[in-house]
Amino acid sequence: MDWYWLNGRLVSDKEAQIAPTDRGLLLADGVFETMRARAGTLLWLEDHLNRLREGATLLGIPIPLSDDAIHDGLKALLDKAGLPESAMRLTLTRGPSLRRGLWPPDEAVRPTVLASIAPLVTPPPVRLAVCRQTRRNEFSPLSRVKYIGYGDSLIAKREALDRGATDAVLLNTNGNVACCSVGNIFVRNHAGWATPRLQDGALRGLARARVMAALPARELTIAAHELGSIDAGIVTNSLGLTVVSHLDDRPLDGGEAPAQLASLYD
Amino acid sequence: MDWYWLNGRLVSDKEAQIAPTDRGLLLADGVFETMRARAGTLLWLEDHLNRLREGATLLGIPIPLSDDAIHDGLKALLDKAGLPESAMRLTLTRGPSLRRGLWPPDEAVRPTVLASIAPLVTPPPVRLAVCRQTRRNEFSPLSRVKYIGYGDSLIAKREALDRGATDAVLLNTNGNVACCSVGNIFVRNHAGWATPRLQDGALRGLARARVMAALPARELTIAAHELGSIDAGIVTNSLGLTVVSHLDDRPLDGGEAPAQLASLYD
Repeated sequence: MDWYWLNGRLVSDKEAQIAPTDRGLLLADGVFETMRARAGTLLWLEDHLNRLREGATLLGIPIPLSDDAIHDGLKALLDKAGLPESAMRLTLTRGPSLRRGLWPPDEAVRPTVLASIAPLVTPPPVRLAVCRQTRRNEFSPLSRVKYIGYGDSLIAKREALDRGATDAVLLNTNGNVACCSVGNIFVRNHAGWATPRLQDGALRGLARARVMAALPARELTIAAHELGSIDAGIVTNSLGLTVVSHLDDRPLDGGEAPAQLASLYD
Repeated sequence: MDWYWLNGRLVSDKEAQIAPTDRGLLLADGVFETMRARAGTLLWLEDHLNRLREGATLLGIPIPLSDDAIHDGLKALLDKAGLPESAMRLTLTRGPSLRRGLWPPDEAVRPTVLASIAPLVTPPPVRLAVCRQTRRNEFSPLSRVKYIGYGDSLIAKREALDRGATDAVLLNTNGNVACCSVGNIFVRNHAGWATPRLQDGALRGLARARVMAALPARELTIAAHELGSIDAGIVTNSLGLTVVSHLDDRPLDGGEAPAQLASLYD
């Protein structure tokens, strides 16, 4: 049986039901966080809750539970699942509204807070393809928070698989590198490591900040053509980091992650 | 009691439950249509189903029911509600997936097909403000289908209300006019009526095509500054059309809709 933590209660999958009026479902009116957990401990929890709050503030969604109550709930779900290494997802939506339309919702709307947990999966080195079908919108403030609208990433990921790669590099509307489908990207050339700037459409990743400090890596605008001269790459998110083995079929130095990143997720 | 049509069955609100693993909820992995209905008849149904299929094809979501089965289901919901004039929403998501992550979903995933109905509301003339906080991504193919990720529209609409307007004009990333938060925009200047081109980020609206033919209106790239010289505007979607009374506090000729549009929704 799968367990969820839903609106302050630990519930089984039978009880964990979402209303058909939930604005998360109908309008993608929500944000989320995905966290790594080990042996009863949630990695970077405070930072995750801070970022969740940033996204919620941008959309104007109140968070109906204190950080302590959220921590207790996630911990209860973690204990119930009893997994050695796991991925915990915390989703916040505006909640169910009987009033249709974009805005305003009805007065009785109460945010939905949902957490789910799954075993942590460690992916193999990634083969990247630069996405052609869509672009990431660096003009939207939603590109800098964990917004639940992953449609462009989904299109990019599916295109990458169709082309024999395993993940996509998304360019922004200006043709500069933004990120991968579910992670930040770091690339290395003769000048060292770099990662796209937030204003270029990169998510403010929690792993991103730590990898920038550890490598170290500079924040730069990276034009698509500059990817032709990189010799190594890493994709990072809160669940882990993956070495890039190929970029558009060109092999990179995709063996081991740099030694200074070994303890990043400990 | 509210009724829904969910995965082929007419169900009450108590039974109409969505799984917490639904990818529509978690990743905005879905599309929708909103239709106008009157006295047992759904307006433009065939066109709506064609557009739903276009969006579903873009995301790679199979539609698990035939057009006839969808028509019968929507008709049953319409009859149950018994409203003289209504707004019917049909939502298609990839469905619940126990496998976490962006892609692929688990093999057992089965799309969610959900319809809901509400009384039709006729809004008063609209005061528009040009949105400053976000832009519509004309580079994304999702901008041309009815994707459920309405985050940018939501930000724009809330900004408009904060500024004393009632809806927003969204510009695209190039600074040209794209659309309003939930509708296409038509503007008139000395040269006549015009509406933004699809490649500028306009949704391929069903009312848009009909208004273009009826006015008539040209499809044009409309720079933001060109809004300064318009003297009338209309916002259209499948539920109705609204005359623009003001644009950024400047009064327009916002009295009556042009006579040739009078029978558009009959």
